[in-house]
Amino acid sequence: MLDENEKHRRRMANKKRIIDERIAQAQEERGVLILLKGNGKGKSSSAFGTMARSLGHGHRCAVIQFIKGRDATGEFLFFKDHPRVDFHVMGHGFTWETQDREQDIAAARQAWALAEQLLTDGSYDFLLFDELSYMVKYGYLPVEPMVKALQRRPQHQNVMITGRTMATELQDIADTISQVQDEKHAFRLGVKAQAGIEF
Amino acid sequence: MLDENEKHRRRMANKKRIIDERIAQAQEERGVLILLKGNGKGKSSSAFGTMARSLGHGHRCAVIQFIKGRDATGEFLFFKDHPRVDFHVMGHGFTWETQDREQDIAAARQAWALAEQLLTDGSYDFLLFDELSYMVKYGYLPVEPMVKALQRRPQHQNVMITGRTMATELQDIADTISQVQDEKHAFRLGVKAQAGIEF
Repeated sequence: MLDENEKHRRRMANKKRIIDERIAQAQEERGVLILLKGNGKGKSSSAFGTMARSLGHGHRCAVIQFIKGRDATGEFLFFKDHPRVDFHVMGHGFTWETQDREQDIAAARQAWALAEQLLTDGSYDFLLFDELSYMVKYGYLPVEPMVKALQRRPQHQNVMITGRTMATELQDIADTISQVQDEKHAFRLGVKAQAGIEF
Repeated sequence: MLDENEKHRRRMANKKRIIDERIAQAQEERGVLILLKGNGKGKSSSAFGTMARSLGHGHRCAVIQFIKGRDATGEFLFFKDHPRVDFHVMGHGFTWETQDREQDIAAARQAWALAEQLLTDGSYDFLLFDELSYMVKYGYLPVEPMVKALQRRPQHQNVMITGRTMATELQDIADTISQVQDEKHAFRLGVKAQAGIEF
């Protein structure tokens, strides 16, 4: 009779075979478009964590924040001086903070003009468009030029877009989509938003 | 008649009032326990992004990776030399790579012993236990001591735990839970796992 350890070894050897086969089938090498959507906490931080990962491998990266205007966020303070990161805070705050639709639209257009430029620049390996999806949802920016610019980008370039709701057009051309769902949040337990966690 | 911009301003002013009221109700200041679960891409990277945010605010952080054994991941390369990060790669690889249950259990116990130590050390503001949840799922570590150690930790300490499935006992004591769901993945489109995105 096989002991538990040997049974485990055989099960795992079998699992490894199946996984190795799957890995062997995925051999295309190119940049990917990743969308992080949903109402849960962790979308922007996931994108910044992926950027850290990319930087760890020596890549060149750029960030455009489409909404956040506060420049004392932890992510800004942490990444702003990195020699391989261009960090652009292009928003002026949430819509309910600015209360100025025309100014918000002007800021969105300016930010998108920069995004289009980055999407033609092959020296960038990784681009993060933080909260870009709201620009489509609010009707501040049309989605068609986004689709075109994303499709025409350099072949190796990875792009991440965050935001609660994603336009179908962006989901159609995405390679990876993760939906982050809110199951529980400290804020609803009465805990104040804190530096290093919420911003 | 109000023009569109003025209507927008009034709607946003109203929204701001509601949001400000909610913010005023959340005034408790303490560290939180955040769980990132689910089958989607972005759990570990979200935790590393939060760590970057925390570092941006001058915090001291530690990471324990319970499964990953490869030390050339982007996150390791990026964070390992940061003066305020202690980065512990304590795993030896996935279960189907090691195929050695006893070695996996011994590694898990050693990693958890370190985790318990960090959870009593108030000099750490942020702890990341990457893929800890699998240790419970595989039956390598009991969950009760985890609950106790997490509950007794320094009052200001933030902790993040990642992994596909989370024990109910951990979910019960968590402040924030995000479930990351896989809707689409480049791997299934035939794209090879790449440095800077998958590791």
